[in-house]
Amino acid sequence: MTTVSIVGGSGYGGGELLRLLLGHPHVEIKQATSRSHLGEYIYQVHPNLRKRTQLKFSDPAQLEPVDILFLAQPHGQAQHNIDQLAGLAGKIIDLSADFRLKDLARYQQWYGEPHAAPGWLDKFVYGLPELHRSEISSANYVSGVGCNATASNLALLPLTRAGLIDLEAPVIVEIKVGSSESGAEGNSGSLHAERANVIRTFSPFGHRHTAEVIQELGLKDISLTMTAVDLVRGVLATAHARVKPGVVMKDLWKAYRNVATENPFVRVVKEQRGIYRVPEPKILAGSNYADISFDLDETNGHIVSICAIDNLMKGASGTAVQCMNLMLGLDETTGLEFAGLHPY
Amino acid sequence: MTTVSIVGGSGYGGGELLRLLLGHPHVEIKQATSRSHLGEYIYQVHPNLRKRTQLKFSDPAQLEPVDILFLAQPHGQAQHNIDQLAGLAGKIIDLSADFRLKDLARYQQWYGEPHAAPGWLDKFVYGLPELHRSEISSANYVSGVGCNATASNLALLPLTRAGLIDLEAPVIVEIKVGSSESGAEGNSGSLHAERANVIRTFSPFGHRHTAEVIQELGLKDISLTMTAVDLVRGVLATAHARVKPGVVMKDLWKAYRNVATENPFVRVVKEQRGIYRVPEPKILAGSNYADISFDLDETNGHIVSICAIDNLMKGASGTAVQCMNLMLGLDETTGLEFAGLHPY
Amino acid sequence: MTTVSIVGGSGYGGGELLRLLLGHPHVEIKQATSRSHLGEYIYQVHPNLRKRTQLKFSDPAQLEPVDILFLAQPHGQAQHNIDQLAGLAGKIIDLSADFRLKDLARYQQWYGEPHAAPGWLDKFVYGLPELHRSEISSANYVSGVGCNATASNLALLPLTRAGLIDLEAPVIVEIKVGSSESGAEGNSGSLHAERANVIRTFSPFGHRHTAEVIQELGLKDISLTMTAVDLVRGVLATAHARVKPGVVMKDLWKAYRNVATENPFVRVVKEQRGIYRVPEPKILAGSNYADISFDLDETNGHIVSICAIDNLMKGASGTAVQCMNLMLGLDETTGLEFAGLHPY
Amino acid sequence: MTTVSIVGGSGYGGGELLRLLLGHPHVEIKQATSRSHLGEYIYQVHPNLRKRTQLKFSDPAQLEPVDILFLAQPHGQAQHNIDQLAGLAGKIIDLSADFRLKDLARYQQWYGEPHAAPGWLDKFVYGLPELHRSEISSANYVSGVGCNATASNLALLPLTRAGLIDLEAPVIVEIKVGSSESGAEGNSGSLHAERANVIRTFSPFGHRHTAEVIQELGLKDISLTMTAVDLVRGVLATAHARVKPGVVMKDLWKAYRNVATENPFVRVVKEQRGIYRVPEPKILAGSNYADISFDLDETNGHIVSICAIDNLMKGASGTAVQCMNLMLGLDETTGLEFAGLHPY
Repeated sequence: MTTVSIVGGSGYGGGELLRLLLGHPHVEIKQATSRSHLGEYIYQVHPNLRKRTQLKFSDPAQLEPVDILFLAQPHGQAQHNIDQLAGLAGKIIDLSADFRLKDLARYQQWYGEPHAAPGWLDKFVYGLPELHRSEISSANYVSGVGCNATASNLALLPLTRAGLIDLEAPVIVEIKVGSSESGAEGNSGSLHAERANVIRTFSPFGHRHTAEVIQELGLKDISLTMTAVDLVRGVLATAHARVKPGVVMKDLWKAYRNVATENPFVRVVKEQRGIYRVPEPKILAGSNYADISFDLDETNGHIVSICAIDNLMKGASGTAVQCMNLMLGLDETTGLEFAGLHPY
Repeated sequence: MTTVSIVGGSGYGGGELLRLLLGHPHVEIKQATSRSHLGEYIYQVHPNLRKRTQLKFSDPAQLEPVDILFLAQPHGQAQHNIDQLAGLAGKIIDLSADFRLKDLARYQQWYGEPHAAPGWLDKFVYGLPELHRSEISSANYVSGVGCNATASNLALLPLTRAGLIDLEAPVIVEIKVGSSESGAEGNSGSLHAERANVIRTFSPFGHRHTAEVIQELGLKDISLTMTAVDLVRGVLATAHARVKPGVVMKDLWKAYRNVATENPFVRVVKEQRGIYRVPEPKILAGSNYADISFDLDETNGHIVSICAIDNLMKGASGTAVQCMNLMLGLDETTGLEFAGLHPY
Repeated sequence: MTTVSIVGGSGYGGGELLRLLLGHPHVEIKQATSRSHLGEYIYQVHPNLRKRTQLKFSDPAQLEPVDILFLAQPHGQAQHNIDQLAGLAGKIIDLSADFRLKDLARYQQWYGEPHAAPGWLDKFVYGLPELHRSEISSANYVSGVGCNATASNLALLPLTRAGLIDLEAPVIVEIKVGSSESGAEGNSGSLHAERANVIRTFSPFGHRHTAEVIQELGLKDISLTMTAVDLVRGVLATAHARVKPGVVMKDLWKAYRNVATENPFVRVVKEQRGIYRVPEPKILAGSNYADISFDLDETNGHIVSICAIDNLMKGASGTAVQCMNLMLGLDETTGLEFAGLHPY
Repeated sequence: MTTVSIVGGSGYGGGELLRLLLGHPHVEIKQATSRSHLGEYIYQVHPNLRKRTQLKFSDPAQLEPVDILFLAQPHGQAQHNIDQLAGLAGKIIDLSADFRLKDLARYQQWYGEPHAAPGWLDKFVYGLPELHRSEISSANYVSGVGCNATASNLALLPLTRAGLIDLEAPVIVEIKVGSSESGAEGNSGSLHAERANVIRTFSPFGHRHTAEVIQELGLKDISLTMTAVDLVRGVLATAHARVKPGVVMKDLWKAYRNVATENPFVRVVKEQRGIYRVPEPKILAGSNYADISFDLDETNGHIVSICAIDNLMKGASGTAVQCMNLMLGLDETTGLEFAGLHPY
């Protein structure tokens, strides 16, 4: 058994990691830390884990050595004690944004402050297996992914990989998100009475996850527009671009199918009948799938490319466990078998 | 024009008062106070009032004299400065629980602490027009009503008024409520990600509003069981009792119709077909109606009596404005004409 | 009193018309027709209207003459008996899509079939007062508006009117909509268990309402992308365009404020703090407001322009009543005073 | 591998069976039938199963022999061809209501028509393992359970088993349910625009599942009151009874803990702090747990006993698979390991 600990286990990302790792056949959880819930049973914070574990939250100051350390803290923390944490485990998977960007200037541009551990940026692999599977397999340090970045990257990946769009041309990604993105702390706008029934375009452009799409896909003129809707888990990215002259539906089918074939968690959803003809996050809650689709307006080359994920799974903890599997040489899908629910 | 001010205008009850009074043809709002939003435009907190008023929240310490003062503060505040407030206005309508109970011992029993202004309890009339219309009409001091108490009182009123149930027998009222009952402050369980999709029985018995049902209807053995559901506005009270021997459907129809006939805001909803056969809060949002219904199991006398209201309207601010109308000799329904929405 | 009748009163648009017209001080409703609910009380279908009217649905074959006829039937019906209907009333307001497009070829292109009454297209004025106030004031025949077209038109109007964008350049409007757009008939995907929690991009481009934006604003390369979200009433249009070189924030503020100043139901919502900083449909349910806002990425001229409306109000029946007010020489806002609700 | 087929695989219960059985390590699915979706891929109807199976729905008239047959048809069908079906499989698990009641007269009383196969009633064991584990283990024919009956039975089981309540005394169970109970066919009231935001007490008493509680627990005077709320999956039963004189909290703790200890899927949830202090269906979606709790008003013996389940899992398909495990001599929890989600 591989021993793992989770730093920051009481947040939503941490809870999802706990759920996945408790059900993982090759892993034993040693500790999950939480300052605010220190000493409480994990199931008192994550009630779905009752009867699954008798573990209590422990003090982050009393972490013991393990094989793999998962960091699920708020952004901006891991970079301050990464040296110390690296002394406790040979492998680290950090779900925060601290080590996602490789370029120091870009980090400072998008996060508005200097990085506290610039020497570590190069050591971390960007942890999206659909982009970096082989590097992750041999890495010791893997960063997590931004959930909105992931939905965007997977919506656009078939197009960039097959060279069907021009990297200089404008790309607009309209992203709709559920409330779990705000985290377990929330704010006044997160109260149910204020957050229910919303369609709230809270960030027209400039969302930090944009930097991850620029870095990973090489797009030069891309904006992410964020809109909150009434849902707890889920992200839908609807990307708008123009294909290169001459690109037709057949090219697109091929490009999307290739990505789905190469990646166990990617599926193409493009049906002519039935209720679920396109990717929808509602059926993905708890699953690690990324469902993708596309449509082309052949009159003007306007392509609409869609990706749906569960932000806490494929957009965070699910992908982190997928990376762990790769790092351990296990089948990529181990412990990530849950299919999602219908109806939901 | 009657001049009014609202103490505590930034909460949900205060916002609803503002909406109603801004649209009231006989009223002019002088001030609305808020410590936390001092100096902000009212429409910055209550965005539905944009283009309706340019008033800003003022300092509660700088209240000026008016004809009527509405108190919309959290419970436990008005009793501490009621003498001072009474110096500013000849008429006061207090939406809080401070002056609802007439019996000092009962107040202490249900609220767990002594009352700070016991001498004022007798001066306030319990502000439910369906129970105390004529007293309210001649009163200077009127208390608000508990929203859950109101749904319970109106569900049971036809039965107690017509003497169809025994006041000593057990009565169970199962109450389902929306999230606006928690107020604009909320708590960790009020976050959308935690509060969405709930069916949460948060109080099996002992809810403070029970005291108002005991006081107003004289029931001796009554419990209110509170369950939160996924809705913002709305209360449904489903009351269970046993009718006296010999009571049949005809008696019930008569009792319920009488209450509806005597009260402009009470309607009997009991249809044999269509979607909306019974009272439902969803179509009452923003309206002052209380919809009631009933069904009788003739094999054992079990009666299920139902009342639906909007907790912020008939359960709070709507009833307060209705009381104001009575106190001013106006038609009871003035400024309360909104019909509610379908669909919603 | 002006006499009016409503053809097709049992749908959602018809129900909203009934609610508005029952509360209108200058109007008397003579008939509301419905084949499927013939003989039923209006309040059995629209339960919010209980105690507001004792009218029953009547037979469309037995319409009597009135001053104004509202047509609230499904698309494709009015064009088949418009001559006959015009014999019953001097003024007609048709909420369907039958007479919105002025160009016969465009109608056929977007609706896929020839028009049954092409001679009538010119007689109808496109019924959006923000675009055609004076023509509507003197018109006898006014068409309704598409809800998604209206959100798009009002999001883009400040830009086109002030000449801030190039009419030839690509414009993408991402539109999020509630379930009431599907109408009272629905389909299998409209069932609550399938439609709850959705983020469903059901139409990437090609939505029929696009034709109304092309016609009214003169945009040459515009697409509407439709996404269903979990809400009953509401549309949010988020429009993406590029401003002309040199356009800065100050120009935009002026353009948006001008539109809001000239139109009683348009408001600019652009706050720096608080929960409601941008337009949101959730606070507009039942109100006739269109809330608009914008943001500019000065690095590349990308403008995001937003408009929120209630699809059944400003997007359909509210605007129809606004047109009626203009046609009757009344104040434009008569009977449309409801402010919307907070919280909701 | 055990071979199984599912008759009626396109409904919600059938879909959940498919999800569970596809993930079950000891089972191979041979056929899933559907008349309305004949020839379609299962994943076109149950989109969560995409990439999990390439099986298509087959014709119920062409069923082949298997080890176990699951019947997931609407009520009233299995009883008409049970002899024929029994010829195809040695073991049958019927999720419908056809073989739940043992008493022919009771069936006729609650279902309003004679039973078509009365000789089979005795052959079926009522399929709730918490009540009949050993009989199920040796049975060939097992009936499913009503979801509302299951929530009620498990809420009351600790009390009846320990003899803490009088079986003759009145028991009221208030049940709140999600929309998936209405099934994939739905009705006009199931449309999202009508069903969203509901608190709809659609059955004050007389629900058919009552018969299962009477049969299984021996309660003489029990009513189930049904209220629909805005949720897709989930049932909460809140049972009201009076304990026998002398019963105190300690007795209750013991009774509830005993049931949880004896049954792997039953948990007691009774916390003093945190958000999730009581059973809530929202965290149970997809899981087979039944969470129970209680509270006692010691002044009058009023006990409130609560049970939360996912109606499609513990209330239907999850319990059916649990029965299958027992019938096959497997660990009861095999294939039912999903923990549920937090947040949701």
